[in-house]
Amino acid sequence: MNKIKIDTSVAFLYPMPMVLVGSVVEGRANFMAVGWISRVNFNPPLFAIALAPHYTNKGIYENREFSINIPDVSLVEKTDYFGLVSGSKTDKSEIFNVFYGESDKVPLIKECPVCMSCSVYDAVKLPSNTLYIGEPKEVFTEEKYMTDNKLDIKKINPFTLTMPDNHYWSVGENLGKAWIIGKNLKKK
Amino acid sequence: MNKIKIDTSVAFLYPMPMVLVGSVVEGRANFMAVGWISRVNFNPPLFAIALAPHYTNKGIYENREFSINIPDVSLVEKTDYFGLVSGSKTDKSEIFNVFYGESDKVPLIKECPVCMSCSVYDAVKLPSNTLYIGEPKEVFTEEKYMTDNKLDIKKINPFTLTMPDNHYWSVGENLGKAWIIGKNLKKK
Repeated sequence: MNKIKIDTSVAFLYPMPMVLVGSVVEGRANFMAVGWISRVNFNPPLFAIALAPHYTNKGIYENREFSINIPDVSLVEKTDYFGLVSGSKTDKSEIFNVFYGESDKVPLIKECPVCMSCSVYDAVKLPSNTLYIGEPKEVFTEEKYMTDNKLDIKKINPFTLTMPDNHYWSVGENLGKAWIIGKNLKKK
Repeated sequence: MNKIKIDTSVAFLYPMPMVLVGSVVEGRANFMAVGWISRVNFNPPLFAIALAPHYTNKGIYENREFSINIPDVSLVEKTDYFGLVSGSKTDKSEIFNVFYGESDKVPLIKECPVCMSCSVYDAVKLPSNTLYIGEPKEVFTEEKYMTDNKLDIKKINPFTLTMPDNHYWSVGENLGKAWIIGKNLKKK
């Protein structure tokens, strides 16, 4: 066997979906780039985001609300910028056009194809990060990102991140239908 | 504004990384397909997987250990099969070549470019799913999946899932370097 062991500190997923998480901090819309995110519950839909201490967290903690915004490939530079510069030192609110749904504490990004307004369902403290579990209350998109009334990843055109090499990646080719293509093996 | 609201039940990430999670149940290696997974802590590295009640969970619960295996695109049919058929009814252990690291309770898949043996750090009960948080104890790969001593996504060639349209996707083009390309906006 050619398997080799590598250090656990380089254990990452390949690839990780990139989003922008938003909150209102000290009266101002603030966003940060997040790649450690997952859907975590079926009903109600819940998402977990794992955040190190950041300026955005202050708003999430205070308001018990945050947004998840899925950027497209045209926003890769801007998204990266939000991972480089803290809102505590720089007003990043002018980079995007911000809109609001029912809550004025949940800033949403107009340029992002999919935006979710979430309330905090739970927060799990881990050694370095806090896992904020959020329940979407409103989901916004545009007709142009949908096909047959479903969100269409090729129209959304999102991107992913790899670590520790630190690169962004587009979505590639369609490899087949889930919960269908595996049926070929059932006959064997 | 052209934003429309859609139902929160269709709130998913675009795209979701696909892995195979393994455990030993009733003395037999068992795996399931999982797309709800995220790195959740920096130090120690921790991963969260959100599992609905499944046969594999029984082994995770009993042994407090499980594996995360990242399949490549050549394994998309086999991975899908593991999401279609329960180990409670079908012995799926012959589909892959299984190997073990230090623990005989953590089955790893030889065909997968990256395999992690994890111990359960915590388990968070959510309404439909349980969030198993695991700490990797051993990470296995092969030289052919690395470039300059780092895992290389183009060599790993993993795939992702979208829901609720239920499609698998390859990884596309390199869009630039994270924590670098956003610096262009700093000057503005």
